[in-house]
Amino acid sequence: MLNEVKIAIDAMGSDNGPGPIVSGAALSKERNPDSKYIFFGNKKAIEIEAIKHKILKDSYEIIDAKETIKPEDKPSQALRKMKNTSMGMSLDHLSKKNVDAVVSAGNTGALMGISRLKIKTLSGILRPAIAATIPHSNGEFVLLDLGANTVCNAENLVQFAIMGTEFAKVVLGKPQPKVAILNIGTEQEKGKDFIHDASLLIKNTYIKNNFIGYVEGNEITKGVADVVVTDGFSGNIALKTAEGVANLCGTYVRNLFSSSIGGKISYFLMKKSLSTLKEKLDPRKRNGALFLGLNGIVVKSHGGADNTSFAAAIDIAFEFTQEGVGDKIIKGIYNLNKT
Amino acid sequence: MLNEVKIAIDAMGSDNGPGPIVSGAALSKERNPDSKYIFFGNKKAIEIEAIKHKILKDSYEIIDAKETIKPEDKPSQALRKMKNTSMGMSLDHLSKKNVDAVVSAGNTGALMGISRLKIKTLSGILRPAIAATIPHSNGEFVLLDLGANTVCNAENLVQFAIMGTEFAKVVLGKPQPKVAILNIGTEQEKGKDFIHDASLLIKNTYIKNNFIGYVEGNEITKGVADVVVTDGFSGNIALKTAEGVANLCGTYVRNLFSSSIGGKISYFLMKKSLSTLKEKLDPRKRNGALFLGLNGIVVKSHGGADNTSFAAAIDIAFEFTQEGVGDKIIKGIYNLNKT
Repeated sequence: MLNEVKIAIDAMGSDNGPGPIVSGAALSKERNPDSKYIFFGNKKAIEIEAIKHKILKDSYEIIDAKETIKPEDKPSQALRKMKNTSMGMSLDHLSKKNVDAVVSAGNTGALMGISRLKIKTLSGILRPAIAATIPHSNGEFVLLDLGANTVCNAENLVQFAIMGTEFAKVVLGKPQPKVAILNIGTEQEKGKDFIHDASLLIKNTYIKNNFIGYVEGNEITKGVADVVVTDGFSGNIALKTAEGVANLCGTYVRNLFSSSIGGKISYFLMKKSLSTLKEKLDPRKRNGALFLGLNGIVVKSHGGADNTSFAAAIDIAFEFTQEGVGDKIIKGIYNLNKT
Repeated sequence: MLNEVKIAIDAMGSDNGPGPIVSGAALSKERNPDSKYIFFGNKKAIEIEAIKHKILKDSYEIIDAKETIKPEDKPSQALRKMKNTSMGMSLDHLSKKNVDAVVSAGNTGALMGISRLKIKTLSGILRPAIAATIPHSNGEFVLLDLGANTVCNAENLVQFAIMGTEFAKVVLGKPQPKVAILNIGTEQEKGKDFIHDASLLIKNTYIKNNFIGYVEGNEITKGVADVVVTDGFSGNIALKTAEGVANLCGTYVRNLFSSSIGGKISYFLMKKSLSTLKEKLDPRKRNGALFLGLNGIVVKSHGGADNTSFAAAIDIAFEFTQEGVGDKIIKGIYNLNKT
């Protein structure tokens, strides 16, 4: 087996217990046979789930964790109790390089807080950010920050632009990704002061020729930018609203085919292309956001993730163990400080 | 003719000249035969467009305006030059009660600034807000603020909740609309300080029993709340992202039916229900946002509105001339101060 990849999985972070998480690992294993998993959490509960999946045989171990970080725990509470938790222990293994990546569906603030403490931020990075790819009309774009930094300043946005650029080079395969700042208008004076300042600061960096200015919410799905930068509050609102609308559209399309005889006949005529559309509209297929700016690979899954969805998050962790995004970001930030 | 309604139309606010605006008025006239229009702007250019529409005959007048507020004008610039502009003159007519409402596709900041100066805010209102209805899985909800107030405090959000409640009673016909604050999590400590403060303050108002707490972007399209309150920056991001995703879904569905023979046959079998879906996914049908908290009816249309879209904005102005939302908001804010 070439390049075996070891992924630490916080098996207690889901709203629905370890079932969907372990089952998600089994699904991801089908696609990435070189993976091995260490599940952290209630050993007995995880074992019951793991033995259901033949494909996981000899590909996992379980490390018992007595405690769990709760969704309502503040980052400070999480940091105090992390030692015996499934989340804290998985990040501890990453810090000791026993594993190549961590995937958790737990409390985002706690995951970021413990990650910063255990595996540290990359040299020069003020604030790590959460990034994910989102579909647009003819491809995908990178959106960040998705919720790690509720309040940001101009310098944070500039660093997000650099991190997003290096991330996009890898995930989108574009050597010169176009970068934009999310705003509520395209004129220079629109929006908030820190956004104006960031737009000026970016013009002094090595990505200045790829910076296309502001972009509005209705433009991002048109593919005008490869990287869309925003504060964590706005990014989270944009991402989740997009998910909500995509779900609603999916419901509309389903109703369309079930509400008339013509629709039911058409369903059989179009079954194949409908299932492609279903995948496109299904936010579960797009689960898994990467924490950018850390000395290691940490992937955050939705708390309500089902097995399909959790598998998508594990896939992302696997992919990024194959790429040196962290090194490229360090170099980018280093170049930034030189300019 | 009962209850003739006179609507002032800023014919110069569109990105595409007076053509789509005048043509939109003709479309709206078909649905609301009791309307009369006063177009403000370049008299010659408007006249050329107006004579194309028989339905407008004897139903309009034109008031020549020498100047136009530009999209890039700051509110302060707009206030200085408003006197001879199509926007300023239409709002002046509203302030003198020569018309029942104003519709403009022009610069939002300028429209709000001149509105506040000319027709004033309702008694007790600190900041007017922009509100519109958005579809969810089994109806509609009201979202505000959509961009009038980039930065808000807790008291602003509480007033938006009151204004949104009174607006929703009228537009949704619900006597006790459920109110939520848009946030990036549902736990009390998630998000920003002014949001936490607002959530506590709302619990001391007459709408406290209808307040359901925080709602995330992916929940708003599920119909969990009738009124979703947020600052103008986040509201604008949510609204426009929703529009962008709806457009993208529309493209996906079109491609689905044109990409195979099965799809083309299905198109004929499903033509009727497809056109219903098209309407649902078409943000143009939902154009027109109301400025809430002013002593008069001002409707903002998209700058890029086509005739269908502009007609929808005029429809909203017409509808609201039939309802006393302003009086209900004043009463709500008065009750608020009493509690």
